[in-house]
Amino acid sequence: MYSHSELKELVDKAIINLSFNTEAESLVDPIKYVLSIGGKRIRPVLALMACNLFNDKIDEAIMPAVGLEVFHNFTLVHDDIMDQAPLRRNLPTVHSKWDLNQAVLSGDVMAFIANECFLQTPLGCLQKVFRIYNTTATEVCVGQQFDIDFEKKTVVPEGDYLRMIELKTAVLLAASARIGAVIGGADEKDSELMYEFGRNLGLAFQIQDDYLDTYGDIKVFGKTTGGDIGANKKTFLLVKALEIASPDQFNQIHELIGKTETDPVEKVKMMTGLYDQLGIKKLTEALADDYIENAFKMLEQVSVKRERKAELEAIAGSLKGRNK
Amino acid sequence: MYSHSELKELVDKAIINLSFNTEAESLVDPIKYVLSIGGKRIRPVLALMACNLFNDKIDEAIMPAVGLEVFHNFTLVHDDIMDQAPLRRNLPTVHSKWDLNQAVLSGDVMAFIANECFLQTPLGCLQKVFRIYNTTATEVCVGQQFDIDFEKKTVVPEGDYLRMIELKTAVLLAASARIGAVIGGADEKDSELMYEFGRNLGLAFQIQDDYLDTYGDIKVFGKTTGGDIGANKKTFLLVKALEIASPDQFNQIHELIGKTETDPVEKVKMMTGLYDQLGIKKLTEALADDYIENAFKMLEQVSVKRERKAELEAIAGSLKGRNK
Repeated sequence: MYSHSELKELVDKAIINLSFNTEAESLVDPIKYVLSIGGKRIRPVLALMACNLFNDKIDEAIMPAVGLEVFHNFTLVHDDIMDQAPLRRNLPTVHSKWDLNQAVLSGDVMAFIANECFLQTPLGCLQKVFRIYNTTATEVCVGQQFDIDFEKKTVVPEGDYLRMIELKTAVLLAASARIGAVIGGADEKDSELMYEFGRNLGLAFQIQDDYLDTYGDIKVFGKTTGGDIGANKKTFLLVKALEIASPDQFNQIHELIGKTETDPVEKVKMMTGLYDQLGIKKLTEALADDYIENAFKMLEQVSVKRERKAELEAIAGSLKGRNK
Repeated sequence: MYSHSELKELVDKAIINLSFNTEAESLVDPIKYVLSIGGKRIRPVLALMACNLFNDKIDEAIMPAVGLEVFHNFTLVHDDIMDQAPLRRNLPTVHSKWDLNQAVLSGDVMAFIANECFLQTPLGCLQKVFRIYNTTATEVCVGQQFDIDFEKKTVVPEGDYLRMIELKTAVLLAASARIGAVIGGADEKDSELMYEFGRNLGLAFQIQDDYLDTYGDIKVFGKTTGGDIGANKKTFLLVKALEIASPDQFNQIHELIGKTETDPVEKVKMMTGLYDQLGIKKLTEALADDYIENAFKMLEQVSVKRERKAELEAIAGSLKGRNK
C-alpha cells in the first residue's frame, strides 16, 4: 500500500514529466505555469488511492489520474476568465498574467492534454474510464453555468444550490475515486460505492469552504474571512439563511446585500449576526458532517479488508472539523 | 459506394440526433444554434468518403466523423471570441448573441461532445483514431495562436504563414481523411497517403480563400471582396507581396497598411495595384494549383481501384479554379 505522500510525489513527478506540443511557446507557458503552481493534487491522489484499494499495482492509473488534475486546472483557467478573477492562490490568473485569448486557448489545449492522459488508460477499461471522465467533464461545465446563473438570481433554493456544488465540485472527486477503482479492477458495485464516497466528500468539502470563508480562524485559515459576504456571493450559508428567514429577516438580509457603501467589516458583522439568529453555523456544520458520515458509510461497504482502507479513511477523517 | 450528397445527409441526420446533457438549457442552446447553422460538413463527409474508399460499410465511421464537425465548430466558437467577430456566415456569433461566458463554456462542452463521438469508434481502432484526433486538435490550437501572434507582427515569412494555415486549417482535413481511412481498414501507408491528400486540399482551400477575398467575383463569391485588405489581415497575398517587394514597394505597402483614414475602396484599389505589379494573383493561383495537384498524386497512389476514388477526385477537382 502506498501512503498519501508517496502518491502525491508520484503525481507531481508525472506532471513534471508531461510532454507538450512546444511549437507555440506562448501557448505552453501558461499551461506550465498553471500546472506548476501545485496544490494538494487531491483528485489524482484520490484516484490512485482508490486504485490501490483494490490492487497493489497502481502504475496504470497514474496517467489517467494526472488527466483528472489537468482537467481540473483547465476548468480553473476558464472559470477565472468567467469570474474575472485577478488572483488564484495569491498568484495572477492566466488571463491577467497573459491575456484573454491565451487563457481561452491554453485552457483548450489543457483539455486535449487531459485526453492524451486518459488515452493511456489500459485498453481493457479505456472506453469505460474515458466515458466516466467525459460525462463528468460536461457535468462540471453545467455546474459552472448554474453558478453563473445563480449569481444573477435573488433567491436560490437550497436544493438547486446543492446540485450546483455537486456538479461543479463533487462529481469530479466522485469520478476520480471511481476511475481509480475501475482501473484497480473493482466490480461495478464497489466502483459505484467509491463514486458515492468521493461525491459525499466533495459536497462536504465545498460546504466547509463556504463555512470557513465566514467562520474560519484567519490565523489558521490563511486568508481573510468574510470575502463571500462582502462580494454577496451565493454560498450555502446565504442560501440557507434566505430559505429559513422570517419575512423580516429576509428583508434585512436583502437590504444588506443591496448596500454597496457599507463598511465591509460592518457588513460582515451584521450578516454574521443574522446568520447567528438563524443558527446557520450549526446547520452548516451538521450538513457537512452528514456528508462526511455518508462517505464513511460508503467506504465501509466496499468489499475490501478494513486495513486497506486506512489512507482513504484518513482523507475523510481529515475533513472532520476542518479549519483550513 | 455512397455519393457526396448521401454522405452529407447521413452527417446532418447524425448531428440532429446528437444527445446533450440538457440540465442547463443555457449551455445547450448555443451548441444547438452553432451546430444547426450547417455548412458543407466537409470534414465529416471527407472522413466518410475516406472510409468508403476502403470499405462498403461506413456505419462505424459516422460518429467519429460527427466528432470532427463538432470539434471544428468548437474552434469556431472560441476563435470568434478571440477575433472579436460579431458575425459568422452572416449570423451573430455565440459570444455576441449570448455573452463571453456562455461562449467559453458552451465551447468547452462541445469539446466533450466531440470526445463522446470519438468514444463510439470501434474498439479495435479507438485508441489510434482518438490519438490522431487529439494530436490534431492541439495543432489546430497552435495554429490559432500563430494566427494571433502574426497579426501583431510587421512581416511574417512565407514559410511561417504556410505552417500557420497548415495547422489552423489543413491538419484537420488531413486527420479527417486519415481517421476515415483507419476505420475503413486501410493499412499504414494508405492512411498516410490519405492524410497527405487531406493536408494538400486544406492548404489549397485556405490559399484560395485568401485569393477569393481579393480577386473573387462578388456576384459568385457571395460576399464583398477586399475585406482582408481593409482589415490589414495577414493573408498569403500580403505575406507574399511583402516577401518579394522591392524596398520601395515594401514601403508603399506599409504606408497603405498604416493608413486608417483612406477610403476603403481606394485602399483596396491601391493594394491590388501593388499586388498586380508583383504578380501576386498568378503566384497565388499557381501555389493553390500545386497543392491540388499534390492531392491528386497522393490519391492516385492509394492502393484501391480507380473507380472507388471518384467522389474524392470530384472533391479535389471542385477546388480547381474555385470561384466561391
